[in-house]
Amino acid sequence: MDLSSLRFAHRFDQVSGSAIREIFKIIARPGMISFAGGNPSLAALPDEKVSELSVQVLRDHGKQLLQYGATEGYPPFLESLKQYVETAVGFRPDAVLPVTGSTQAMDLLCKALIDPGDTILVENPSFLGNLQCMKLYQANLVPVASDDDGMDPADLEEKIKAYHPKMVYTIPTFQNPSGRTLSLARREKVAALAAEYGVVIAEDDPYRDLRYRGEMLPSIKSFDREGWVVFLGSFSKIISPGLRVGYLAGREEIIRKCTVGKQSTDVHTANLTQAIVDQFIRQNLLPDHIRTICADYGEKLARMLGHLEDLAGLVTFTRPEGGLFVWAELPEGLNALELLKKAIDQGVAYVPGTHFFVDGGHENTLRLNFSNSTDDQIDRGMSVLKTIFREAK
Amino acid sequence: MDLSSLRFAHRFDQVSGSAIREIFKIIARPGMISFAGGNPSLAALPDEKVSELSVQVLRDHGKQLLQYGATEGYPPFLESLKQYVETAVGFRPDAVLPVTGSTQAMDLLCKALIDPGDTILVENPSFLGNLQCMKLYQANLVPVASDDDGMDPADLEEKIKAYHPKMVYTIPTFQNPSGRTLSLARREKVAALAAEYGVVIAEDDPYRDLRYRGEMLPSIKSFDREGWVVFLGSFSKIISPGLRVGYLAGREEIIRKCTVGKQSTDVHTANLTQAIVDQFIRQNLLPDHIRTICADYGEKLARMLGHLEDLAGLVTFTRPEGGLFVWAELPEGLNALELLKKAIDQGVAYVPGTHFFVDGGHENTLRLNFSNSTDDQIDRGMSVLKTIFREAK
Repeated sequence: MDLSSLRFAHRFDQVSGSAIREIFKIIARPGMISFAGGNPSLAALPDEKVSELSVQVLRDHGKQLLQYGATEGYPPFLESLKQYVETAVGFRPDAVLPVTGSTQAMDLLCKALIDPGDTILVENPSFLGNLQCMKLYQANLVPVASDDDGMDPADLEEKIKAYHPKMVYTIPTFQNPSGRTLSLARREKVAALAAEYGVVIAEDDPYRDLRYRGEMLPSIKSFDREGWVVFLGSFSKIISPGLRVGYLAGREEIIRKCTVGKQSTDVHTANLTQAIVDQFIRQNLLPDHIRTICADYGEKLARMLGHLEDLAGLVTFTRPEGGLFVWAELPEGLNALELLKKAIDQGVAYVPGTHFFVDGGHENTLRLNFSNSTDDQIDRGMSVLKTIFREAK
Repeated sequence: MDLSSLRFAHRFDQVSGSAIREIFKIIARPGMISFAGGNPSLAALPDEKVSELSVQVLRDHGKQLLQYGATEGYPPFLESLKQYVETAVGFRPDAVLPVTGSTQAMDLLCKALIDPGDTILVENPSFLGNLQCMKLYQANLVPVASDDDGMDPADLEEKIKAYHPKMVYTIPTFQNPSGRTLSLARREKVAALAAEYGVVIAEDDPYRDLRYRGEMLPSIKSFDREGWVVFLGSFSKIISPGLRVGYLAGREEIIRKCTVGKQSTDVHTANLTQAIVDQFIRQNLLPDHIRTICADYGEKLARMLGHLEDLAGLVTFTRPEGGLFVWAELPEGLNALELLKKAIDQGVAYVPGTHFFVDGGHENTLRLNFSNSTDDQIDRGMSVLKTIFREAK
């Protein structure tokens, strides 16, 4: 029998693969200026330090690191991670689980909680990778309204009452793709709504340390009394995405279920990469490293916003205080998908905003990343885009 | 609202976590002789070589390794892996996908193929971790009869006709937990049945290189013409389980679907661990390393079998030519779960066989591992077990 008769699982019926990752293949062309990814700058990746730490941990604990580890995590890292969450993120976690990048945190949380047809409330637009994750769990994704202060609690409460969701998925700080940040008052309100109605909040917060202006805000989790908020943490933006180390932090009952899910997902996250991140925490290397990254990214963000100001009146855009993304809206009728072809022909790439919306549409929007470009690339790339957007009008 | 009102996903209704991993916690006690795990011996773990290779790959490609990678795999590893599968495993793969340990290979294959209620045919007993994986995809697990030559093709065909399964899960070489190996003729027959009826074969073959006697057998995949066989490969037993590097090899259509699933599972496997395994292949380090491991494990297996021969007449057991496990059957009426308590009191652990059966039962069976014990531990541990089993009769 020919393989063409093979039927794949229904969870793939609505999923065809990440559009962003297809764009990534195009932008791999030499000379391309890419505002498309969400990649750290190469300068921000501590390759020499990682090499030094690898030698150290393999010398001190080589056999243990190469042997099977516990699904619950590499014991020294479990210890330093709990301490780190308390002091650096600002809440005392009941339990933590190291995972293979915070993408796995989302996968395990969905595995633990989501049956096909369960409703998840999401910001709209939201992070493509996790939208795909939720779709593969056959969740019913319902958008919640947002404004410049992030998710609107009034709309959130209305949607909770109307849809009885299992979970709310939010990126509260420098949201991907919008760059928006949930205000302090709303963080407290979201936590309160979760407890009032019994809804899990998946608080995905990979960008919180990338703040270039303004004051650090407490997490939603820090207002959580009953345990409904689960925090998804990542070291991808502050150490390295290639190491694939993130974590879940929350109540023991939920973390335990995610741990059982992880047993048959990948048994455990690589011990070596956990041990490297453990040393970053123990040797207190993160504060300085984050300061260096932020100084660099902050200048790049300001530079990109400066170029966008030249388009004021034509293009509206967010002015985030941190993170990796600026969100721009072209005049109604312009199509960022069409214009991307022109931009790519001239060696510049971005991600059309439509990909980030649960139901598509919003063809006049786009996401711009600045962290992985030099000053010169930002200047040249934005000047190409300015011309294209002005001419398209 | 109290968190006690939280309802977890139905996929967990039949799953409570791996019993083996609970036993692992008990055997972590100092001085315990453990025949319970499936761990490589510490001597077999190449910590110095891994340290040396880490320095090398981070020096040569540090920035690339710490940056986001492609879901499809670290490009140099993709290349060496394809070559390796062709020359060392013995079939030319249409496509390969590096994964975070072969446990993830199983998870992604189930994600790609299994809807709740789909039938998977399994050996019985079989590997606990993957049984749990299939249960979390809410598959209907149906056992196929096995004998000393592995899965019985006549029963397999009957079950295929009766249940129209989506997949057959098999560990053809030195099976976990039984130690049995599927014969050459049956390998060819299983591949033929897959094509005749249009059933995917998940060929999980992590132990194939751990052969201490006899001739290497070709994989089921090597008899596959139509693409129905998917090969799950692992470097856990021949390099290190702690690095979490395995792979899927099979037809492009299936690997592509698994790749889309992996995008939202962990984006990609850590680049550093992929690069380390890549160097093991490129520097041709595996043949010598495998030879060293096999010489050691082969002696340990012979030693354990020698002790079991002392129980001939009382205990029946498999005599595998390789792998990590011996399977033993006590007289009917004896209970390996009960006897485990006695054994643990005397400092010796094994895994009761009942855990490996889809529907439990078979309380008189047990699995013994020898790879992670010294000669002296094997002698002392087996002498404890011999006394316990003789007295229990």
